[in-house]
Amino acid sequence: MRAVDLIQRKRDGYELAPADIAAFIEGYTRGAIPDYQASAFAMAVYFKGMTAAETVALTRAMMETGEVLDLSDLPGPKVDKHSTGGVGDKTSLILAPLAAACGVFVPMISGRGLGHTGGTLDKLEAIPGFRVGLSLEEFRAVLRKSRLGLIGQTPEIAPADRKLYALRDVTSTVESRPLIAASIMSKKMAEGIDALILDVKTGDGAFMQKYEDSLALAQAMVDIGRGMGKKVAALITDMDQPLGRAVGNALEIAESVETLKGKGPKDLEDLSVELAAWMLSLAGAAASLDAARAKVRDALRSGDGLAKFREVIQLQGGDPRVCDDPKHLPAAREKVEVLAETAGRVTSIACRAVGTAGMLLGAGRETVDSRIDPAVGLILHKKVGDPVEKGEPLLTLHVNDRARLDESLSLVKSAIRLGPDAPAPRPLVHSILD
Amino acid sequence: MRAVDLIQRKRDGYELAPADIAAFIEGYTRGAIPDYQASAFAMAVYFKGMTAAETVALTRAMMETGEVLDLSDLPGPKVDKHSTGGVGDKTSLILAPLAAACGVFVPMISGRGLGHTGGTLDKLEAIPGFRVGLSLEEFRAVLRKSRLGLIGQTPEIAPADRKLYALRDVTSTVESRPLIAASIMSKKMAEGIDALILDVKTGDGAFMQKYEDSLALAQAMVDIGRGMGKKVAALITDMDQPLGRAVGNALEIAESVETLKGKGPKDLEDLSVELAAWMLSLAGAAASLDAARAKVRDALRSGDGLAKFREVIQLQGGDPRVCDDPKHLPAAREKVEVLAETAGRVTSIACRAVGTAGMLLGAGRETVDSRIDPAVGLILHKKVGDPVEKGEPLLTLHVNDRARLDESLSLVKSAIRLGPDAPAPRPLVHSILD
Repeated sequence: MRAVDLIQRKRDGYELAPADIAAFIEGYTRGAIPDYQASAFAMAVYFKGMTAAETVALTRAMMETGEVLDLSDLPGPKVDKHSTGGVGDKTSLILAPLAAACGVFVPMISGRGLGHTGGTLDKLEAIPGFRVGLSLEEFRAVLRKSRLGLIGQTPEIAPADRKLYALRDVTSTVESRPLIAASIMSKKMAEGIDALILDVKTGDGAFMQKYEDSLALAQAMVDIGRGMGKKVAALITDMDQPLGRAVGNALEIAESVETLKGKGPKDLEDLSVELAAWMLSLAGAAASLDAARAKVRDALRSGDGLAKFREVIQLQGGDPRVCDDPKHLPAAREKVEVLAETAGRVTSIACRAVGTAGMLLGAGRETVDSRIDPAVGLILHKKVGDPVEKGEPLLTLHVNDRARLDESLSLVKSAIRLGPDAPAPRPLVHSILD
Repeated sequence: MRAVDLIQRKRDGYELAPADIAAFIEGYTRGAIPDYQASAFAMAVYFKGMTAAETVALTRAMMETGEVLDLSDLPGPKVDKHSTGGVGDKTSLILAPLAAACGVFVPMISGRGLGHTGGTLDKLEAIPGFRVGLSLEEFRAVLRKSRLGLIGQTPEIAPADRKLYALRDVTSTVESRPLIAASIMSKKMAEGIDALILDVKTGDGAFMQKYEDSLALAQAMVDIGRGMGKKVAALITDMDQPLGRAVGNALEIAESVETLKGKGPKDLEDLSVELAAWMLSLAGAAASLDAARAKVRDALRSGDGLAKFREVIQLQGGDPRVCDDPKHLPAAREKVEVLAETAGRVTSIACRAVGTAGMLLGAGRETVDSRIDPAVGLILHKKVGDPVEKGEPLLTLHVNDRARLDESLSLVKSAIRLGPDAPAPRPLVHSILD
């Protein structure tokens, strides 16, 4: 089918055949189909959507433009987690070592942060020497040794997605659920995994702020994964306040280490354990979800999770002493405290604003070309529901460059709301797609 | 406003400001805005439409990327007709000389045929020597001498439209009413006219087959013209069977000459007179529409219309003897008659099929690159409602190249339906937007 006819069929609401989608994506990736047809197609998809079968076909087509890892020689189930991103979300750094310590392989390919959200790769790079840019051969070797590998997307993985995403970004066709779902899953499905747990965030700091949108995106991704023969489930989890207390790359590494020592914030520990348990359960590495939870809690208590984190840091060239003392991580020159002007209870913490405040300090990227400062960020001393005395510190900014400090301060000051009563607590996990 | 934001606003259903539309079109035309943004924009317009104000702004922006004729030095009103195209539609060749003979200036810039429809330029080029490719200066000189000029679109007229149309053609964004209306009107409004009568066809052979679609397109074009300060009206006219009897370029010139001699088919004469009368009326060159009709009929009866046609042919380098004898026109080597296999009444003539049959003989273009044979085509001996005896000729094909003769014959044979009774006659003019 000619590209122009494919666009017309989508525009007119017909379901496209998998082979036609595959030919379009393959042609686009090698340049035989021009950008102007791909952008018109993306806009037609924006308006007309895609069926589950079309979305699976699109995902598979994008995945197959690149390398698909074959990890079948590794003896055991391979399982990963994907999160749609949030503020202070460092669960990957905790759950991946825990799950690997429990016996499954975790071949994790992560992304970078943009805007108010952080990225696992940026956090890992705050560890001095840590190499996220392993070749696929090196990745395989690290995985074989430790059951855990943590790298960034390589040019060999789903090149169609990279090309199409860049085009969508400049043609206002990003916000299409099937395109978002296919983009995420085309990369995850290339990891050679058997199972995947999806952590789809909802709330102010999430990519999808509305619960219904988060649920629909989760369902689309679950459908794709199952359509491609994988074990997939999704948790819709809360991102209405930052997860844990640390926002910023080195600060989040330190908090992850604390959590692996059993001394982390409860919300972060609980969500990390829950997601790791789902990984074991989906991978068939535990008799039940409860058995999986117990196994993960054991790995946390015994220190096996921390040992696994130390091992992978060492294998990937990083300084394992960050697991002993945060002084081995980059630190900001200056700390600026924000004090409570009145007493009360924290009623809300505007999550997106806090993420943006961190970004303004240099912890995140305003554009894809922005440079990150691994040392900077902020620590929340209070979370929603906590009691606050007048004059008590609400949070501490870790600052190197004061250029946008005022802007950042003004954001965090209005982000934390106090009131007379604690609000009803929001659940950490809103719902489960199993 | 950045192009990506303009696309998003249209995608999300907001009304765009005229200045933003103008900047987008101007940027696209000079290459600062890439094709992939223009095609995404066109697809967003396909789905979300445009308000009347947006469509006027788009038309004006496209017009202003090129030359806009200033004919204010010519002493008298300037008026043109535009048709959305049909089969056997040679009214331009008749009404333009008639209107010019009645005292108005007719600066007519026409197009070529594609698919089953013919184009005025192709018909004019069947006249030996006739030059449709005058420079704008030559055009102006011809107009000054004869009040009539007949040329093709020059590269100086609305280059944005040419570029955008070519893009829409390969991105399935042609079928958008505001884009169609703006495309047509951006060229017409560049002619330096005061008034315009639109002939919007409806029926099997028309670009818009459904009456409601024809009406909506007519309304969009009338709105644009008035929004730009011109006198504009539209007739929705019938294209459910070919207009007149001749389909094919030289054959249509001969029929036009016959009609200017008062010996043409009634439907063709009536529609040409009606449209010419509207031209005079809109231009203020007659006290009423009835007075305009009488004036045009006079010009027909007196032979002034034919004299004007002869004059413009001479001025544009053509052989004026075609007005005396059709033997000066190219003729096909072979005539193939199609005879009635039964007796009865013609109940319908599938208009699009007849147009396509002519195209297959070489009278039209299958693609924009096809070459036309001016001599070939067909003559209908019977029209809808006519009685037919068994064995009587229904039509005659004029053939030079037999390569696709069988295909053409099979089309026309099934195109003409006979039955026991004549159907209720369809009106020539379905409605008027005044």
